[in-house]
Amino acid sequence: MASIGFIGIGNMGRPMARNLLKAGHSLKAYDISPDALNYTVQVGATPAQSPKDAAEGVDFVITMLPTGAEARAVYLDSGVIAAAGADTVLIDSSTIDVDSARAVHKAAADAGIAMLDAPVSGGVSGAEAGALTFMCGGDPETFAKARPILGVMGKSLVHCGGPGLGQAAKICNNMVAGISMLALSESFVMGERLGLDRQTLFDVLSTSSGGSWVLQNMCPVAGPVPSAPANRDYEAAFSAALMAKDLRLSQASAQSSKTATPLGALAASLFTLHVNRGHGALDSTSIAKLVDGSD
Amino acid sequence: MASIGFIGIGNMGRPMARNLLKAGHSLKAYDISPDALNYTVQVGATPAQSPKDAAEGVDFVITMLPTGAEARAVYLDSGVIAAAGADTVLIDSSTIDVDSARAVHKAAADAGIAMLDAPVSGGVSGAEAGALTFMCGGDPETFAKARPILGVMGKSLVHCGGPGLGQAAKICNNMVAGISMLALSESFVMGERLGLDRQTLFDVLSTSSGGSWVLQNMCPVAGPVPSAPANRDYEAAFSAALMAKDLRLSQASAQSSKTATPLGALAASLFTLHVNRGHGALDSTSIAKLVDGSD
Amino acid sequence: MASIGFIGIGNMGRPMARNLLKAGHSLKAYDISPDALNYTVQVGATPAQSPKDAAEGVDFVITMLPTGAEARAVYLDSGVIAAAGADTVLIDSSTIDVDSARAVHKAAADAGIAMLDAPVSGGVSGAEAGALTFMCGGDPETFAKARPILGVMGKSLVHCGGPGLGQAAKICNNMVAGISMLALSESFVMGERLGLDRQTLFDVLSTSSGGSWVLQNMCPVAGPVPSAPANRDYEAAFSAALMAKDLRLSQASAQSSKTATPLGALAASLFTLHVNRGHGALDSTSIAKLVDGSD
Amino acid sequence: MASIGFIGIGNMGRPMARNLLKAGHSLKAYDISPDALNYTVQVGATPAQSPKDAAEGVDFVITMLPTGAEARAVYLDSGVIAAAGADTVLIDSSTIDVDSARAVHKAAADAGIAMLDAPVSGGVSGAEAGALTFMCGGDPETFAKARPILGVMGKSLVHCGGPGLGQAAKICNNMVAGISMLALSESFVMGERLGLDRQTLFDVLSTSSGGSWVLQNMCPVAGPVPSAPANRDYEAAFSAALMAKDLRLSQASAQSSKTATPLGALAASLFTLHVNRGHGALDSTSIAKLVDGSD
Repeated sequence: MASIGFIGIGNMGRPMARNLLKAGHSLKAYDISPDALNYTVQVGATPAQSPKDAAEGVDFVITMLPTGAEARAVYLDSGVIAAAGADTVLIDSSTIDVDSARAVHKAAADAGIAMLDAPVSGGVSGAEAGALTFMCGGDPETFAKARPILGVMGKSLVHCGGPGLGQAAKICNNMVAGISMLALSESFVMGERLGLDRQTLFDVLSTSSGGSWVLQNMCPVAGPVPSAPANRDYEAAFSAALMAKDLRLSQASAQSSKTATPLGALAASLFTLHVNRGHGALDSTSIAKLVDGSD
Repeated sequence: MASIGFIGIGNMGRPMARNLLKAGHSLKAYDISPDALNYTVQVGATPAQSPKDAAEGVDFVITMLPTGAEARAVYLDSGVIAAAGADTVLIDSSTIDVDSARAVHKAAADAGIAMLDAPVSGGVSGAEAGALTFMCGGDPETFAKARPILGVMGKSLVHCGGPGLGQAAKICNNMVAGISMLALSESFVMGERLGLDRQTLFDVLSTSSGGSWVLQNMCPVAGPVPSAPANRDYEAAFSAALMAKDLRLSQASAQSSKTATPLGALAASLFTLHVNRGHGALDSTSIAKLVDGSD
Repeated sequence: MASIGFIGIGNMGRPMARNLLKAGHSLKAYDISPDALNYTVQVGATPAQSPKDAAEGVDFVITMLPTGAEARAVYLDSGVIAAAGADTVLIDSSTIDVDSARAVHKAAADAGIAMLDAPVSGGVSGAEAGALTFMCGGDPETFAKARPILGVMGKSLVHCGGPGLGQAAKICNNMVAGISMLALSESFVMGERLGLDRQTLFDVLSTSSGGSWVLQNMCPVAGPVPSAPANRDYEAAFSAALMAKDLRLSQASAQSSKTATPLGALAASLFTLHVNRGHGALDSTSIAKLVDGSD
Repeated sequence: MASIGFIGIGNMGRPMARNLLKAGHSLKAYDISPDALNYTVQVGATPAQSPKDAAEGVDFVITMLPTGAEARAVYLDSGVIAAAGADTVLIDSSTIDVDSARAVHKAAADAGIAMLDAPVSGGVSGAEAGALTFMCGGDPETFAKARPILGVMGKSLVHCGGPGLGQAAKICNNMVAGISMLALSESFVMGERLGLDRQTLFDVLSTSSGGSWVLQNMCPVAGPVPSAPANRDYEAAFSAALMAKDLRLSQASAQSSKTATPLGALAASLFTLHVNRGHGALDSTSIAKLVDGSD
């Protein structure tokens, strides 16, 4: 069993930490919010006084933070890297911009500490079920060391390449998914206005070149896919706010890599618009409501 | 065996006509080009002197024309509808704008003649193999009458609804497919610039929310899908020029139905740009070359 | 004084007809709506029984119709061209797609009748003040003949070139104007979120490379330009619905001319979205409300 | 006369430094490139050994750096803020992202040192003529102190508001300018394809709602404006690479402020695409070549 410093006990961090405790690992937990920290203490973690405290004398540090700014603050300014021992493995499961991920990686490498960026997909329900997907960036040895711990929280562990490439893989995928949601929304809304039956269009798309995972699993209009959020008032499986965030991260990478991603850029704008209209808590497929003018 | 008037003997019309003849049907063929017409005569068709001539005294009229303007000209101005008998079934397999399709349908209905819009997918190879998909719009009785004839040229016959809805289904699908090609191109180009291995990204996408028919079958970058056009210098399976045309048709419908299709509109612009640069004969997935700046 | 057949007595046609009557011309008026027709009769016009009736035996025919479909119907199907005398000059002041304008021009030319496409800008207030701008397409002789009549209704008469080029000039201009409104909206909304004072940003833009007619006259946010619609709850000077229509017309031309207009296409989509949300009657600069999420 | 530490002697820094020397100020200059440094020494500056050295014991520090990363490195990591005296005024004339500008401002404020972000417009020719525009962010007292020094290098000194708002004003303006260039390019390319004479369209735009500073001064097609770069093979007045950079900065701010700027986002993508095709050294108005397919 390993000793783990866990920093960032939010909606995702909570079930992840709980699963680690259940599996018998010992946790030193830290969060900026005392309430969040208390929760973890009640389920068996030791409270840490600071990020640095959480990182001292542990086998692994796991962080689950909202943005690159917090990740830089925790790793670089709060002394987590400085506090980590030579054998500690740092795992940042935050979804953040590639540049910040690489800045943290570099500081860790300079200090001789092993690090992995390991953003997840699967959402709160995946975290609760221990069924997250981890997309990991770092060297293979570090990935190998982290596997047993990641395996407690997730089912699919993917090594995507060197530092930052876990983040890169995640946003490259989510950029495609976000665009697909918009493409399907436009297609269904236009089809309906032309008089096409929704189920008929679904059948055509799903057996033709328009087929996709999003269509089959998250069809953005109600009807064709009973389990899709569109059938329960867009109760969030993956919220529009998170999609907007990931699309903006994709654009941060597009800008720093000087890549032209016109559709990605437009999708980022449109999801941001949808969220600014107050719909961030809905499922990301509610972007169909922006397209049909009903949001 | 039926008698068929066949108007429009181009790249697609040629194998379609040949398959009808092979199946034992009799053909009266017409094309504005004497060479095209000759070809059909050599394989067994009777030459017609005009569209009207082709339409007289036959069981079916099949048209395969480039745009809505030609379809209107043939059906409305050349007297095809006027020449058709009360039991003739008109089948327009051209891919044209919904408004033109409906104008022709209306004229046929006013004359009491049964009509089907029946655009195809599958390309020249699909036409040669008699394996086209027909997306059909019209009433169920007309669809039923046309089935045996369409079945000679295609394998998948889909009744999409009333007049014009074959066209609508095709462009709603192709709009999604064209957007997917761009989305994947942006994702792969950006991934590569961030250092992501192409196969790794393919694996992530194909097992995540970024998966799609286009990814699995027409991956726009060389490597991951050996059979994809990207691996043979984008030799066309479905040309960029045709994709640009279908996307522009989608936008004609977006405008006439006052639907906002921002990604569809942008995709239409970008494919048009790519074709204007001289790449219309390449496969549509060569849009990846526009995205990476190499076209 | 001339005899004029006037077809289409809507918001614009009404003051245009009145100004012609005031100037001493005699009018035969026609509108599909009896109420609209009555109005014109009350101010001095003779009622016509049909478009054809209005076109018989007059020096000029002036049409003011909503879309290309109506223009085609009136000129081609209702027999206006057939009814016009050899010396009649046809003036279509409708704002319609270039293709329809050219189809009507061609039919007129085939019949040996002089024709001008002459869409206007200036809105209802410009029409009332006899201060419209006419953008004219047709041959110089026809333009010369029409000048005295157009001069009664407008102040600025521009000969833009041959058939259809009045329409072309109008949509090429309005496409730029619509994009400018969006660009300024994005700039002001972002500036505000970054903490920039609105007046300060206005001053910077108006003295720098961001300056434009739209900024100086129709600034899309309240404050800097007191006379702009933004200061009176976006009461329409030029409505969002008309801008959306003109942008869609620009896209019809982009498609038929196979021009890539990515920003024009996106602007058309976004104005359509804004109108679909129920804001078509507001001024076009209310697109700022779409951008800031408050529409 | 003041003593000035000048850091960053590139294309812009060179003439700015020369003008300061000419005006009688004493300069300690630093650049990472010995050649760049030598140039300044030859025209009268004292060489500094490091950024920190340049900042010690001077009245003003002026920096002219390529991106926010260098600005953060110079001010935060190289000890410039630490080295500055209590009365030193820091002036960052780099064009960088608002977040970096504010991070540097904050560090200066924490150290009790006065600071101004003061990006410029006017290009190399403006720098040589001492005719730059400075858009300044910081408190009014600091702006007042900096005025005499900025006035040596520029003619128009604008106080845009608090920290970072000089950067904000610049990118809000340049986003509008970049979009205008694209809008005009699309309009002229489409106009030409429709048959509109270029000069005619220019006349219509410049007297209508499509008029703008860009049209009058930087018309993106050759002909109408003789002094515009389009008439000299797009020799750069303001290069496409710089426009692409500023548009990407605008998008960084759009993302951090969660503003939807769909046209700004698309413009950033299209300029990036144009630069990636190898045209970064051309004038920004060469984006017309992307639109017409000739780049």
